[in-house]
Amino acid sequence: MNYQIIFFLISHILRLEAVFMLPALAISLYQKETAASAGFLLTILLLSVLSLPGIGRPPERKSFYAREGFVVVGLVWIVVSVFGALPFYVSGAIPNPIDCLFETVSGFTTTGASILTNVEALPLSLLYWRSFTHWLGGMGVLVFLLAVLPMVKSGGNSLHLLRAESPGPQVGKLLPRMHDSAKMLYGIYVALTLIQIVLLLAGGMPLFDSVTTAFGTAGTGGFAIKNDSLASYSVYLQAVVTVFMALFGINFNIFYFLLIRDFSKVWKSEELRAYLGIMFASTALVAMDLMHTLQEPFGRALHLASFQVSSIMTTTGFATADFNAWPELSRMILVLLMILGACAGSTGGGIKSARVLILWRAARKNIERMLHPRAVRRVTIDDKIVDGDTIDGVNVYMTFYCIIIAVSALLVSVDNFSFETTITAVLSCLNNVGPGLDLVGPMGNYSAFSNFSKLILTGDMLIGRLEIFPMLFLFTPSVWKR
Amino acid sequence: MNYQIIFFLISHILRLEAVFMLPALAISLYQKETAASAGFLLTILLLSVLSLPGIGRPPERKSFYAREGFVVVGLVWIVVSVFGALPFYVSGAIPNPIDCLFETVSGFTTTGASILTNVEALPLSLLYWRSFTHWLGGMGVLVFLLAVLPMVKSGGNSLHLLRAESPGPQVGKLLPRMHDSAKMLYGIYVALTLIQIVLLLAGGMPLFDSVTTAFGTAGTGGFAIKNDSLASYSVYLQAVVTVFMALFGINFNIFYFLLIRDFSKVWKSEELRAYLGIMFASTALVAMDLMHTLQEPFGRALHLASFQVSSIMTTTGFATADFNAWPELSRMILVLLMILGACAGSTGGGIKSARVLILWRAARKNIERMLHPRAVRRVTIDDKIVDGDTIDGVNVYMTFYCIIIAVSALLVSVDNFSFETTITAVLSCLNNVGPGLDLVGPMGNYSAFSNFSKLILTGDMLIGRLEIFPMLFLFTPSVWKR
Repeated sequence: MNYQIIFFLISHILRLEAVFMLPALAISLYQKETAASAGFLLTILLLSVLSLPGIGRPPERKSFYAREGFVVVGLVWIVVSVFGALPFYVSGAIPNPIDCLFETVSGFTTTGASILTNVEALPLSLLYWRSFTHWLGGMGVLVFLLAVLPMVKSGGNSLHLLRAESPGPQVGKLLPRMHDSAKMLYGIYVALTLIQIVLLLAGGMPLFDSVTTAFGTAGTGGFAIKNDSLASYSVYLQAVVTVFMALFGINFNIFYFLLIRDFSKVWKSEELRAYLGIMFASTALVAMDLMHTLQEPFGRALHLASFQVSSIMTTTGFATADFNAWPELSRMILVLLMILGACAGSTGGGIKSARVLILWRAARKNIERMLHPRAVRRVTIDDKIVDGDTIDGVNVYMTFYCIIIAVSALLVSVDNFSFETTITAVLSCLNNVGPGLDLVGPMGNYSAFSNFSKLILTGDMLIGRLEIFPMLFLFTPSVWKR
Repeated sequence: MNYQIIFFLISHILRLEAVFMLPALAISLYQKETAASAGFLLTILLLSVLSLPGIGRPPERKSFYAREGFVVVGLVWIVVSVFGALPFYVSGAIPNPIDCLFETVSGFTTTGASILTNVEALPLSLLYWRSFTHWLGGMGVLVFLLAVLPMVKSGGNSLHLLRAESPGPQVGKLLPRMHDSAKMLYGIYVALTLIQIVLLLAGGMPLFDSVTTAFGTAGTGGFAIKNDSLASYSVYLQAVVTVFMALFGINFNIFYFLLIRDFSKVWKSEELRAYLGIMFASTALVAMDLMHTLQEPFGRALHLASFQVSSIMTTTGFATADFNAWPELSRMILVLLMILGACAGSTGGGIKSARVLILWRAARKNIERMLHPRAVRRVTIDDKIVDGDTIDGVNVYMTFYCIIIAVSALLVSVDNFSFETTITAVLSCLNNVGPGLDLVGPMGNYSAFSNFSKLILTGDMLIGRLEIFPMLFLFTPSVWKR
């Protein structure tokens, strides 16, 4: 284990977090939110001081392997979350430290689950920071570091970092150099976010609302700055968010292929087709259900359905209606979409369409082999062969995924809330969605859970965002042996 | 595809079903239940006539392969269920033909889910037949045929039949000859059933109750002949059932090893240890929960918990209390046990401890390989290597298992019952348990569902009992090509 490089990277991340907190500090000073200013100032000072010893000492060995990649990512996310939670606590805006951690992890992991019963009471600077954690966590803090830090640029092994932080069963580089790949990802990310902000402003949304809503959309996070989420905005604004949620759920490689005008790769992408196909089919079913059961007119049903399907399938979690009160078919579709999630290589959570595609193809191949034992068949996606290691990886992922759901549901059920609340809270947190059903429905929140359950759900959010292995390795003793 | 042997085997099964219906006919005549007598008589006549053409014509080619095995098993179970449902319909005891099919499939698949709102109103002969379907379906109708039919005795390929009908990821023969293996299985099965009947009689349970309760226990079925399931019987009788449910959830190979005094194999069985370990741990947790939350005294809490854990984990489904009203921790434990199920090679349903063990070991091996890419590790159970095909098979099984749950939940949710009712109805039927939560709780039933949902759940019961592949192949067009 290369401890030097772990220490070095964490120090850089701490300094980065201090820099990222400056705009929030500025807002708090401008708005004269004294308590919040104190919170941000103290955190920034603490981060700066703590990052000093490590930054000046570049590691002697720059090479590191998969396990260092996983461990760094796991540690960084915990450290960043703890310091990110400090302003909430120091300012007194959220009195319970576990609530502060829950809210911040929910932000960075782009979950959007909240323990706040009245979001609108939060100072603007803290609302801004809360939404900004979505934006930063969406594409990843280490990927950002790869894009800006010259030192890591030279290390070819930093692919391990990208792999450990980016979602999906097969993470590859867009460009030969890691530094350029990370820059390209963040470039597309910034551009799409800016376009959304402009479109929201054009629809008459105030600047602060536009920026925070775009942060929540881009990271597929879902923290809103209103108690009714996005219900009170105009149909145009909701439609803009619908489209952008769907866009941020797409594999960013697709945008890169669009940029370099390689349209055949876009067209051939089987994951994109599956993703859009399921999204359209689900929207149609939910719209029909709303028309049939709740007698909503066609246009409104389609608007409500497309927003909510886009929001839940991309694991954003914004709401324009209380879907907890919708008929059971629509609720069941939304719960299944929570689990399925968005595309690999997007900012969304869930199992990801790519994994489901691989599982399905592998299952079909095995069925064929049961019928014709001598036939050799390969699993392919986009005409490329998926190797056995990747398939094994997906199977292991699914095994741990199911075990984590079972164990979490068991632990959270001690709080004695309803089956629906317990199960959907776990599913929603593990898949980084935000709202669930019943008590944790879109108009509810997570404040009623015990501190113990909040910690379990906080863990689930981290496990879900980092796709299990970094958190798993962090708690595997043999990983730490030299 | 060897159509001749399929036709031959189905004809024999039809005749067998006619013979098995004779005791029920006798009871109906003795009890002067005229309508039931007419139902049994008509069905027996029909079965006898339909079986005639096939029985006299032994197939020219006696060999058949895995796909014939799966297809025969799938077809036989559908045919046997349809004819088994006739007495309920002809006698007028259950007016809706889909209800008749649901109840019969629930019987043969040892699920124990019922559409009857008042079980005690059913004529005794039909109650007997209903419970007997559990006993027959538990060990398997084709395994019975293998044990009694001289023709199939010689066919070495009949292992495919045993594999397709018996639960578990790795089904092997106990004895070199298939005929002897099937006989041994049924011998143990009959002996254990008889011992249970004697112990129940010794506790003062009436003969009819003892026989039907033993049928429901042996098959891990769960049809009771009282509206309150087993709640009104004495603590002794409930305790006997607790122990025998647990016994029938054990791999029958274990009983064989006990018979031949090969105790080391019993002791070394990792599946048995996992099964008993989870059962004891769950009982302790549920008992503590009942003591703590419902203030039950220690003895009664332990009695209630051990019965319900044994009943649900073995997927029997008997109840001595309304566990739907228990605190959420206990309810969640029971739902998770429904999914886990009993041991491979038992009469119980669920995923089976053996599959979970294989998944866990395979996941651990892959984690090790991620850390040490060059290390070669093998998955072993009971010191024997689990080959890659078996692991692939378990993974494919889990993929289809999850897809079937998702699709079934979606289709059943159209009925607009609660999330809890919908999900647990699907889980309970697919895992052949019987009761779920809320509307389908132990004191509820499945009568409120639409015909459409009842058919979906009927399909789930068959898919669960035959462990997916026979039903899957039956509806795969390429299987039917010559």
